[in-house]
Amino acid sequence: MNGADSLVATLITGGVEVCFTNPGTSEMHLVAALDQRPELRSVLTLFEGVATAAADGYARMSGKPACTLLHLGPGLANGLANLHNASRANVPIINIVGQHATYHVPLDTPLTSDIEGIARPYSKWLKTASSVSLLGQDTAAAIEGCRTPPGRIATLIVPTDIAWSSGGTVGQIAVPPKAPLPATATIEAVAGKLKKARNSALLLSGNTLYGEGLKTAGRIAAGTGAKLFAPYPFTRLQRGAGTPPVERMPYVLEQAVDLLKDIRVLVLVGAAPPIAYFASPNKNSAFTSPECEICTLAKPEEDCAGALEALAAVLGVGHTPPCTEPPQGTSIPTGAITLSGIAAAIAALLPENAIVVDESMTSGRGILPGARGSAPHDFLANTGGSIGIALPLAVGAAVACPNRRVLCLSADGSGMYTLQALWTMAREALNVTNVIFANGSYAVLKREFSYLGVGDPGPRARDLMEINRPQLDWVSLARGMGVPARRITSLDEYAQGLREGFAASGPTVIEIPL
Amino acid sequence: MNGADSLVATLITGGVEVCFTNPGTSEMHLVAALDQRPELRSVLTLFEGVATAAADGYARMSGKPACTLLHLGPGLANGLANLHNASRANVPIINIVGQHATYHVPLDTPLTSDIEGIARPYSKWLKTASSVSLLGQDTAAAIEGCRTPPGRIATLIVPTDIAWSSGGTVGQIAVPPKAPLPATATIEAVAGKLKKARNSALLLSGNTLYGEGLKTAGRIAAGTGAKLFAPYPFTRLQRGAGTPPVERMPYVLEQAVDLLKDIRVLVLVGAAPPIAYFASPNKNSAFTSPECEICTLAKPEEDCAGALEALAAVLGVGHTPPCTEPPQGTSIPTGAITLSGIAAAIAALLPENAIVVDESMTSGRGILPGARGSAPHDFLANTGGSIGIALPLAVGAAVACPNRRVLCLSADGSGMYTLQALWTMAREALNVTNVIFANGSYAVLKREFSYLGVGDPGPRARDLMEINRPQLDWVSLARGMGVPARRITSLDEYAQGLREGFAASGPTVIEIPL
Repeated sequence: MNGADSLVATLITGGVEVCFTNPGTSEMHLVAALDQRPELRSVLTLFEGVATAAADGYARMSGKPACTLLHLGPGLANGLANLHNASRANVPIINIVGQHATYHVPLDTPLTSDIEGIARPYSKWLKTASSVSLLGQDTAAAIEGCRTPPGRIATLIVPTDIAWSSGGTVGQIAVPPKAPLPATATIEAVAGKLKKARNSALLLSGNTLYGEGLKTAGRIAAGTGAKLFAPYPFTRLQRGAGTPPVERMPYVLEQAVDLLKDIRVLVLVGAAPPIAYFASPNKNSAFTSPECEICTLAKPEEDCAGALEALAAVLGVGHTPPCTEPPQGTSIPTGAITLSGIAAAIAALLPENAIVVDESMTSGRGILPGARGSAPHDFLANTGGSIGIALPLAVGAAVACPNRRVLCLSADGSGMYTLQALWTMAREALNVTNVIFANGSYAVLKREFSYLGVGDPGPRARDLMEINRPQLDWVSLARGMGVPARRITSLDEYAQGLREGFAASGPTVIEIPL
Repeated sequence: MNGADSLVATLITGGVEVCFTNPGTSEMHLVAALDQRPELRSVLTLFEGVATAAADGYARMSGKPACTLLHLGPGLANGLANLHNASRANVPIINIVGQHATYHVPLDTPLTSDIEGIARPYSKWLKTASSVSLLGQDTAAAIEGCRTPPGRIATLIVPTDIAWSSGGTVGQIAVPPKAPLPATATIEAVAGKLKKARNSALLLSGNTLYGEGLKTAGRIAAGTGAKLFAPYPFTRLQRGAGTPPVERMPYVLEQAVDLLKDIRVLVLVGAAPPIAYFASPNKNSAFTSPECEICTLAKPEEDCAGALEALAAVLGVGHTPPCTEPPQGTSIPTGAITLSGIAAAIAALLPENAIVVDESMTSGRGILPGARGSAPHDFLANTGGSIGIALPLAVGAAVACPNRRVLCLSADGSGMYTLQALWTMAREALNVTNVIFANGSYAVLKREFSYLGVGDPGPRARDLMEINRPQLDWVSLARGMGVPARRITSLDEYAQGLREGFAASGPTVIEIPL
C-alpha cells in the first residue's frame, strides 16, 4: 500500500464520504487512490473556492467533515476565501493539499510556494507529511483535528514522493472528543439571572439553532419569557411552522440596537457578543444597550445544546412545551416584481424540509422573516462575510441531503465570485433552484459609503458600485454551464419558476431583474 | 487631507496610474479619495483574481506598477493565486488592502482575519499602516519596495480609521534603485567560456527577452554561435520577423533534454537552471546533460540587459548585427480544424505589434514556434503555473497598451478559473480577441497521470480530468458578460473570426471545439 492509498483508506475509516476537488499533477497518486475506493465520492469543481464552500455546506447539513483535494499553494489559495467563511461557521473540513516531492521543493520550480504559510491563517490543524509510514497516522490526526469541537479546519500537506512511496499503513482514529459542558456554577448563575430579569434573551449559535438544541431553547423561552435570537451570520437555522421562533440580528446597526434596546440580560449560547461588522466614525459598534448585562452560558467549543438542557432543568422547564411558530397563510403574490412579493412567494411555495442557502444581500433581507411560518426548513447564511459562498454552499448541502430540495438565493455581485458552482450542480444533477437577484449593483456599498460619513459618492466612486455596465445575463451564464435558466418579468412567472425548479430533476436558475 | 487622500496622492506622485479593484466597505474612504483624482484610473473587476493578474499584465507591458485595492483578508486571498504567478514574473505590484479600524480588530467580527499572514507568502514588502501621519510615507515605501529590482509585490494594509482620520501628508519617493551590474570578473569569466565552447547557449529572462536586451543577445548569438533560449515560464518575449530568434524550453522533460543534449556551456541571464516543473518517480528533473556547465552571468535582481551589453563588449560583438528571424510566408489554412492550422492562422493574421497572452496549455504548444516569423509582437506566458491567468492578464496588457491589439489564448479549463475577466474587457472596451481552446478536458493531467507511473487512469480518475459533462458553452458564457462570441467549425471561420476580432472595437470571443 503506497502513501496515497493509506491516506484514502484512513479517510474512509474515519467516515469521510465525499471529496470536493480540483486536482493537479502533484495529486495524481491521490486521484489514483480515490479511483480504487468508490465509497469516497469525488466531486469535481472548476475552481477551488467552489470546493471549499461545498465542503462547508456539506458539513453544515451532515455534521460530518468532507475533504477537499487541492493543487499546491495556488489551489489552496483559491479556496481560502471560502475557508474564511467556513472557519467562522465552525464546521469540520479536511484539506488535502499536494506538494512537490520533498527533494524537488528546494529546486524552487515555478509552482513552489510556502503552502504552510498560505494554510496557516485558516487552519487550526496543520501539518506537512514527512514520512510514508506515518501518513496514515497524520491523516487520522487531521480527522481528529477537524472534529475538535465545535469543528475546525485541518490541512494536511502531502509531498508527492510520500504519496507514491510504498510502506503506507492505515491510521487509527480515536473516538471523536465530546464537547464539555460548562461548569454547573455557570449554568446556575445564568438561571438565576434569567429568573430575575424582566427582559431577557438567549443569543443562540451552533447546534442550538436546530434540532433538540433549538427545542430546548424553545422550552426556556416558553417557561421564562426570554426571547430567542440568532447572530446575523449563523451557520444553520431551523425555521418554519412548529419550530421555536428565532429572531435574526439585523445587519444594520441602528435596527439591531432598536431590537435589543429593552433587553437587560443577554445570554450567549455559543455566540459572540453582538456587534456591527464594521466600525464607523464616531459610532459605537455594540448592539446591546449599556444597561444590558451580557453573560455566557456556553462557549462555541462547549456542548451548547447540553448546556441549554442543563439550564432548562435548573429552571424547571425541561418538560415545558416549547414555544412554536404557527403556520402562516399561503397566498401567492402576483403582478409586478417587488422584494416583498419575492419573499412572500418563497414563504408560500417552499417545499417541506427544504434547505435555503442565502446570500441575497440587500435584496433578500425580507426573506428570512417572511418565511418564519412556512413549511419547516433549514436556512444557511454567510458566516464570514466573504461574498461568493451561496452557489457552492448549495452544492455541498445538496450533496449532503440528496432527498431534500435546495433553494439558493444569491445576489448577482456575490454570485459572480464562484459562478462555476453551477457547472458542478449540473454535473452532479443536484436539485438546487437558484434565484439570482440581479440589481446590477453592489447595493450594500452604496449604503455603507454614506453611512461611513464619506458623503455622496461621486461619479467615479459610484461607478465602482455598479455592475450593470455591461449588464450581466444570468440566463446565458447558466446555460453556458449546462443549467436551464429563465429571466422572469412578473411575480406570476417567478412563482411558476419556483414551482418548476422545486419539481425539476437537477438544477435551475431564475434571474430576477431588479 | 485624510489618510486615504494622502495614500492616493502619494501613489500618483509615485507614477501609479491604474488601480485594479473590487472594493468593499472597509475601502470606502479610499474609493472616495480615488473619486477625487481621475488621473489614477480605477478598473473594476468582479473577482480579485482578475485584479491581481491584470496588475501583472499591466506591469509586464508598461514596466510600471499598478495598484490593486482589495477588501480585507478574503479579498486578498481571492487574488493570491495570480499573485503567485506575478511573484514568479518578477513584476512590481502594490496591493492596498483595507483592514478594520484598529480598535475594531480585537472585537473579532466575522470579516476579521490575519491579513498579514495571508499576504506574507507572496509579499516581499509588507506593512500594516499604524498612523495617519505616516501613511503617505508607508505608501512611498511600498512603491519603493515594489520597484526593488527585478520587481516585487508590495502589500500595504490600511485600517479604516487611519484612512478616514485627518492629518495625512504626501509621501516622498526616492529615485527607484538601479539594478547593479554583475562583477566584471563574472562577465569576463562567462566571455571566456563562450569563446572556448563549441556548443553554447544563453538562457534569457527578464528584460533580455525584449527590446535592447534581446538585441544585444542577438549580437552575442551572431558573434559566438551561442543559441538563445527562454524558460518555459517567461514573463515577456518579443517575437517575429526582424527579432533575434529565441527558442522556448519545452514543458515536457524529454523534449527539453533533447533540445539541450549537445549544449556544453549554458549561461543563465536572470534565469534559473532549467528543470522540470514536477518530479517523477525515478526520473532526473534536470534538462541539461551532465556534461553541460551551467554558469550565471546575472541574477534576476541584477541588470541583466546591462550585463549582456558588457558581455558583448568583452566578446567584441557590441556592433555585430544581431541575428534575426526572417519573415515567414502568410498562407492562411482552410478546412477542418487542426491544432497546426490554428497556429498557422495566428502566424499569418497576427497584427503588427500585437500582444499575445498564452495559456492555451496542451492545445497551443505549436503557436509560439509557429509564429516566430510573424509580424513583430510580444508574447506573455504563465510564469507560475497557477492556471487562470490568461484572460485577466490580457485585461492588464490591454489597459497598458491601448493602441495595440491583444490576442488572448486560453484553454477552457484554465479560462473557467477567472472568466469574470471578460466582463471587465467589455466594460473597458478593451481590444482583446479571446480564443478558447475547448477540448473539454484537463488534457495535461491525462498525460501526467501515466507519466508519473500511476498507470492508466480508471473511470473515476478519468472523470476528474474531463470537463465536458456538461459541455461548457463559451459563446453563452461570453454573451452573459457582454462580449460578442462565436463558435467556429472550420479554419475558414476561425480566420474570419480572428480578422473580425482584430478589427473590432472591444473584446470578442472565439470558441474552438476540439
